[in-house]
Amino acid sequence: MRTLIRGGTVVNSGGPFAADVLVDGETIAAVAAPGLFTDADTVIDATGRYVLPGGIDAHTHMEMPFGGTSSSDTFATGTAAAAWGGTTTIIDFAVQAKGASLLATLDKWHEKAGGHCAVDYSFHMIVSDVNDTSLKEMESCVAAGVNSFKMFMAYPGVFYATDGEILRAMTKARETGAMVMMHAENGIAIDQLVAQALADGRTDPVHHSLTRPPELEGEATHRAIALAAVTGAPLYIVHLSSRHALDAVTAARDSGQNVFAETCPQYLFLSIEDMARPDFEGAKFVCSPPLRPADHQLDLWRGLRTNDLSVVSTDHCPFCFAGQKELGRGDFSRIPNGMPGVEHRMDLLHQGVVRGEISLSRWVEISATTPARMFGLYPRKGVVAPGSDADLVVYDPTATQVLSAATHHMNVDYSAYEGMELVGRVETVLSRGSVVVADGAFHGREGHGRFLDRDLCQYLR
Amino acid sequence: MRTLIRGGTVVNSGGPFAADVLVDGETIAAVAAPGLFTDADTVIDATGRYVLPGGIDAHTHMEMPFGGTSSSDTFATGTAAAAWGGTTTIIDFAVQAKGASLLATLDKWHEKAGGHCAVDYSFHMIVSDVNDTSLKEMESCVAAGVNSFKMFMAYPGVFYATDGEILRAMTKARETGAMVMMHAENGIAIDQLVAQALADGRTDPVHHSLTRPPELEGEATHRAIALAAVTGAPLYIVHLSSRHALDAVTAARDSGQNVFAETCPQYLFLSIEDMARPDFEGAKFVCSPPLRPADHQLDLWRGLRTNDLSVVSTDHCPFCFAGQKELGRGDFSRIPNGMPGVEHRMDLLHQGVVRGEISLSRWVEISATTPARMFGLYPRKGVVAPGSDADLVVYDPTATQVLSAATHHMNVDYSAYEGMELVGRVETVLSRGSVVVADGAFHGREGHGRFLDRDLCQYLR
Amino acid sequence: MRTLIRGGTVVNSGGPFAADVLVDGETIAAVAAPGLFTDADTVIDATGRYVLPGGIDAHTHMEMPFGGTSSSDTFATGTAAAAWGGTTTIIDFAVQAKGASLLATLDKWHEKAGGHCAVDYSFHMIVSDVNDTSLKEMESCVAAGVNSFKMFMAYPGVFYATDGEILRAMTKARETGAMVMMHAENGIAIDQLVAQALADGRTDPVHHSLTRPPELEGEATHRAIALAAVTGAPLYIVHLSSRHALDAVTAARDSGQNVFAETCPQYLFLSIEDMARPDFEGAKFVCSPPLRPADHQLDLWRGLRTNDLSVVSTDHCPFCFAGQKELGRGDFSRIPNGMPGVEHRMDLLHQGVVRGEISLSRWVEISATTPARMFGLYPRKGVVAPGSDADLVVYDPTATQVLSAATHHMNVDYSAYEGMELVGRVETVLSRGSVVVADGAFHGREGHGRFLDRDLCQYLR
Amino acid sequence: MRTLIRGGTVVNSGGPFAADVLVDGETIAAVAAPGLFTDADTVIDATGRYVLPGGIDAHTHMEMPFGGTSSSDTFATGTAAAAWGGTTTIIDFAVQAKGASLLATLDKWHEKAGGHCAVDYSFHMIVSDVNDTSLKEMESCVAAGVNSFKMFMAYPGVFYATDGEILRAMTKARETGAMVMMHAENGIAIDQLVAQALADGRTDPVHHSLTRPPELEGEATHRAIALAAVTGAPLYIVHLSSRHALDAVTAARDSGQNVFAETCPQYLFLSIEDMARPDFEGAKFVCSPPLRPADHQLDLWRGLRTNDLSVVSTDHCPFCFAGQKELGRGDFSRIPNGMPGVEHRMDLLHQGVVRGEISLSRWVEISATTPARMFGLYPRKGVVAPGSDADLVVYDPTATQVLSAATHHMNVDYSAYEGMELVGRVETVLSRGSVVVADGAFHGREGHGRFLDRDLCQYLR
Repeated sequence: MRTLIRGGTVVNSGGPFAADVLVDGETIAAVAAPGLFTDADTVIDATGRYVLPGGIDAHTHMEMPFGGTSSSDTFATGTAAAAWGGTTTIIDFAVQAKGASLLATLDKWHEKAGGHCAVDYSFHMIVSDVNDTSLKEMESCVAAGVNSFKMFMAYPGVFYATDGEILRAMTKARETGAMVMMHAENGIAIDQLVAQALADGRTDPVHHSLTRPPELEGEATHRAIALAAVTGAPLYIVHLSSRHALDAVTAARDSGQNVFAETCPQYLFLSIEDMARPDFEGAKFVCSPPLRPADHQLDLWRGLRTNDLSVVSTDHCPFCFAGQKELGRGDFSRIPNGMPGVEHRMDLLHQGVVRGEISLSRWVEISATTPARMFGLYPRKGVVAPGSDADLVVYDPTATQVLSAATHHMNVDYSAYEGMELVGRVETVLSRGSVVVADGAFHGREGHGRFLDRDLCQYLR
Repeated sequence: MRTLIRGGTVVNSGGPFAADVLVDGETIAAVAAPGLFTDADTVIDATGRYVLPGGIDAHTHMEMPFGGTSSSDTFATGTAAAAWGGTTTIIDFAVQAKGASLLATLDKWHEKAGGHCAVDYSFHMIVSDVNDTSLKEMESCVAAGVNSFKMFMAYPGVFYATDGEILRAMTKARETGAMVMMHAENGIAIDQLVAQALADGRTDPVHHSLTRPPELEGEATHRAIALAAVTGAPLYIVHLSSRHALDAVTAARDSGQNVFAETCPQYLFLSIEDMARPDFEGAKFVCSPPLRPADHQLDLWRGLRTNDLSVVSTDHCPFCFAGQKELGRGDFSRIPNGMPGVEHRMDLLHQGVVRGEISLSRWVEISATTPARMFGLYPRKGVVAPGSDADLVVYDPTATQVLSAATHHMNVDYSAYEGMELVGRVETVLSRGSVVVADGAFHGREGHGRFLDRDLCQYLR
Repeated sequence: MRTLIRGGTVVNSGGPFAADVLVDGETIAAVAAPGLFTDADTVIDATGRYVLPGGIDAHTHMEMPFGGTSSSDTFATGTAAAAWGGTTTIIDFAVQAKGASLLATLDKWHEKAGGHCAVDYSFHMIVSDVNDTSLKEMESCVAAGVNSFKMFMAYPGVFYATDGEILRAMTKARETGAMVMMHAENGIAIDQLVAQALADGRTDPVHHSLTRPPELEGEATHRAIALAAVTGAPLYIVHLSSRHALDAVTAARDSGQNVFAETCPQYLFLSIEDMARPDFEGAKFVCSPPLRPADHQLDLWRGLRTNDLSVVSTDHCPFCFAGQKELGRGDFSRIPNGMPGVEHRMDLLHQGVVRGEISLSRWVEISATTPARMFGLYPRKGVVAPGSDADLVVYDPTATQVLSAATHHMNVDYSAYEGMELVGRVETVLSRGSVVVADGAFHGREGHGRFLDRDLCQYLR
Repeated sequence: MRTLIRGGTVVNSGGPFAADVLVDGETIAAVAAPGLFTDADTVIDATGRYVLPGGIDAHTHMEMPFGGTSSSDTFATGTAAAAWGGTTTIIDFAVQAKGASLLATLDKWHEKAGGHCAVDYSFHMIVSDVNDTSLKEMESCVAAGVNSFKMFMAYPGVFYATDGEILRAMTKARETGAMVMMHAENGIAIDQLVAQALADGRTDPVHHSLTRPPELEGEATHRAIALAAVTGAPLYIVHLSSRHALDAVTAARDSGQNVFAETCPQYLFLSIEDMARPDFEGAKFVCSPPLRPADHQLDLWRGLRTNDLSVVSTDHCPFCFAGQKELGRGDFSRIPNGMPGVEHRMDLLHQGVVRGEISLSRWVEISATTPARMFGLYPRKGVVAPGSDADLVVYDPTATQVLSAATHHMNVDYSAYEGMELVGRVETVLSRGSVVVADGAFHGREGHGRFLDRDLCQYLR
């Protein structure tokens, strides 16, 4: 079964060039001068279109248990929505419960995801219980293709790890070549600010942001970097939201330390103003770190250009407004933390291209190539090259669309970007050679996606 | 009773000038052109000598309980030793035990010190238990002239305060105008490094330093500054030992934040090499933060010149080698932390003048004037001016001496500077008009010293 | 002849204290506890008043030739105005013409000033012609008490020195211990921007500022610092106006380099908005560096607190609006550069005390003590201490006044601060023991002021 | 004519992958899964080899007139040597003489290079005479595919441009989208240091470095960046040699400014020690900026990792020791500035891969892909992709070689790397589909190389 995508402009991280792409089975057989190949079983006309490597969303939380409820997308619904948006790989998080085994946790997540995903997937491991056993199990996880371990400086009593625990895990990461991913907010200090706010009767959603000031994200980021320096472990800061944290990352990267960071579309396009919307609407935007004053957005775009921010992921973790977000009426600290987003990452970032914030090749780099190299999937994923999985997106750069909960495919009852007009649209999506989205319809199937056993990070010195 | 000190060079923080000093009773009556006054009950000839404001050591620990033992100087012996060295005011630390009341603690320390000191004294309060009661008591302490509160990011399980507790105390400090003093080392991470070292059989004294790397002092300093920024509280970093911490302080001070720091003579003159001396000799130098590689010394001298380091105190906390330091043979973590030093601060810093590291006036500023202004004692202390307490030191800049446990007056069986040759020597010392040291003899008396009720810091914007 | 100033609060750079000041002849005989002295030939009641060391304005230009005209204050009128404002010492600039000898220039300025000044004065030397002779003469200048040499990176064709010439002069300064003072603006680049503006028809006064962007002050400041680093010479940046230049100074000072800077009241209180006033009114504010956007003011106040700015001088260089400033109608580049200010420095800076920007002692430090130490006049000037010249100001901190050309004493037809209401006022001024201002009247005399032979800078390591 | 390179590992800037490369005529027809194509006119076995895009050396000086002599490689010999080393594109410099027209200069260089080059070539333009005519001609140059203009802050009287001239040229560059390339050393200050050295009898080659201290490269780099900021022009710092300059570039890049920098192999592998070799041997290493103390090398490698250094070029400008370098015996300032290097750039940088300083893909990026994108040649050059020119290098990563003047192909009588053992070697080189080097023999021909009309820089925001 050979598919020929012809007439398009291939966009790799190095830059765009005109080429046809020949797919044979699940992989790319050749990238060729236009017209070199003429016959195939299927021909897709990409004239006037970009041909992109499928997007990789390195940070999602499908059906994640949180505070007695779960995020509202299953692996089935979430990966289908991802495909709709041109994302053909997700890396989700297996969540160790206190006292649980890492390997058992991994098994559990394999069970949750296995046979349900529309596109390929992999896992990071959330380590919430650092002890001799779990440290030892980190080695087994690496052997099983899960070599990135997320820890939390936030959420005391839930995921929070002490600096001593972080140090232990980082020491193990250093030994195994694994990556430590960090939610960098000073949760201990934040809990105190939250308690003061609630005691003072400041209970609206906007106080979620006001009690998590950017100084405390900057502080924790700086601290994580110091611990990484002491241990020699590589470090990846997840969902960086503020100038304060960016400054800490920039200084570390200037010094040559193995420190990386991702940001998310919500920090690039939304702000604390949204959290202050009336009628509890602000709850829709409650996530951690929180949305910041709008001037931080310019710094984050700059960080994407300077590569101090290397990746854009979504931190997709949807909770419905009805029944879930509403749990926090009268007490912002009870609002489930998280926002939907897996479907719109590629499109939102394309607005950065349209506005001149980033170049076409940088768009592909931050959304596909770098995640692939960062998390050991390259060149299987993240590039349009022979031998790579045929995860391909035919993108129409001039089409327009309006985002809305009425039309999106994520299983959540609101859109954080309701009514936003976008330029550019995903037209056709292939996952390992199979068309999953085309002609405005979903052609994929639950279970098509396979688990990806990952190599180590390809950026370490 | 009038005393005339004539023929000397008065050195105030602004610079030196030739002047006679007339003392009447306990205070300075006049600073006058040489020869203006001719008669007095007592005349001290200061020809060829400096006339300095008495030194203020803002960081001492007399008879402090620590790990089942106590520091070896009592308020009586320690303040006499201070006087020998030209220090006429100490600020010691009242130590709240977990569960104890701050005010009861203060009473206890008044009892320990009252009637025993050879020179004037005051207290900072160590807050080791942050709760509603102790926070409320902070207000009473301020009213009682104790308006500086020390907290620890080190020593988990002993003095350690969480970032949340620090935040609460800082909020109260902000409200009352009080100063938060911080022992800034990441004790949680350090404890992990200590455990690893001991598990690996690295038990010698030098590992005390190796398990407390400067990165973790820099980190904690940065974090304390961030918490101070969030709350608006002024912050004073105690016993800063490393370039890493100095960099954090410098950045904060450049930004105009109310952040101050002191260093200690041991960090200016000793190094990790001393901790590696054979036969457990290194134990004599165990203090926290630890001694650093010698190249940090140049940075600290620079910091003293740039005023990023504003004060030099001793952190005097002596433990005898025999019976006390020896508790840590085979396990460096059991060596009592602390070094003697109250007697030699002025002389050691004078070597900085001799070597050209600091000017004459800066010597006085960092050892007397700034501590006075920092801790609300100015102009009662810290300056040679009319109305000020007649705490005066006649200093011979050309005399030489050799430091030795055989000759020092501190109640401890070793000298950290054994055999060191110094240029300059304290000749005569007055405390509130009374001669306490003269002609190589001690003329003071236990109980002469009075408690000093302090005003707020005079540097805050 | 003994004068007693009694009942006041002496403010030295170390801080304030209550004391009486006894003056005997031209110098201070004693600073004494209140009431210690009871009789004197004259008694000045300073109850409720500050007693300050007389102000030192380290940057004035009396009767300076500039572009075919001269600054409008003579040494006689300018020093009288200084005295009215509590400034009892000025350091003016002798201006070497191209081809002229430094020593002959100095003689000429001695002739201009000698016998005319109301208060004491000294000179810096402007070096506009660097050659073997003038470099050799720098040594003679130092011997003659003129040890600070100003150079210009601005004004090509007039005072401009090339980087090579600066390097030569700095090398000589290093050898002699002299200070290099720098007008740090990139005049070569600025001239190009000016030419473009004029070619484009942008001729209004505000373009004086727009063609001298702060980036080019920051650049030149950075460059001067680099040249000083290469040669080892001390460097004093004059009239620093912008955040950009301050950043460069701060970095150098953090590194311990001998770099100092002054700012001026106009940069603290006025802004580019004033330069945009209609009807050519903006011309009144034309000086170089130019007034900046108002947000720079906050940075400069911060710099004064952090001591990255050590001195406030006036750069007093008045030109009348009528007949002088008007020369630049239709061509901003022809407006004489300079503003009046010598009379109001102390009062304007006192507003900083009133607003809480700086402390009382810092006010004295930046306006008197530091200039004295910086330029080798301490302790003769800059401090209230026995033996010092009795240059004293009795200052009423609660009186109010309104600034106006109608009431000021400078010989210029406008006030840059017309109508500004101030809190605080100079009440009585003594110069070397003689009352020169009292009871709202001038009691001084032309010729009372003496030339001050200066020592080297007292801040160098 | 189809050529198949099979069995190799294609290395693009995004990373390596196994693929065959089909060449048809002068361009790449396809990059294909191994074995997809089986027949071709010629088959090159690349098993165990890398297949790289041909190197691009963006900074060479063939037969450049300098001080009465000329660099010793002609376009013929130099481009052949380049080919031997895997470099298939050079960008040389057309050198405007004072008073000459830019277009005439370009014509002259076309004449010199046309019909002589073994590989493709392009030009930057050196602007040494900024005036209304030459500024206008810049537009024509851009239209003629020469859109990068080099200026000098060094070499007063020769190429030196004043800051005003730089500002004018940058303004024009901003308008046209052109790039300003800068030799950033403060030549005015350096000339003064040189004069002092010669006057003092310090005449050996090592003084070439000592009179050009890194502070003056850092200064000029900072200044160029400031001028670029004022004008909005993009800036490319050529041959960056020191930490001081790197720091300035890093700060600018962190801020998001369009600032780029290249370094050269000599700064990565050689040091001032080489300049101090006895018997005038140091003259072989005289280039500007000069070789630095060896500790700068680590910073430069770090800069290559952090992308603060984006490109490695050679600044190839050979002068024979005999007859040319010898001109400076007894006066280092008369030694022709420049070193040979065009032949060994790819091999030397491969040592960085071997040592772990940079990754395989980064090697390709800094030596081919980024130069192509920086100077508007991508995707024609700099990537192995269909449609691109078939400039390809088959590289043996395990072969070894020893560098020597006895075996190199550059027309110069010494090697700066004489005796150095390298791992890795160029095996086969294609230029636009033609084999130019294979089996240890040169198969190219003078005149094969074509002029490349370049697009604008592809990195600008």
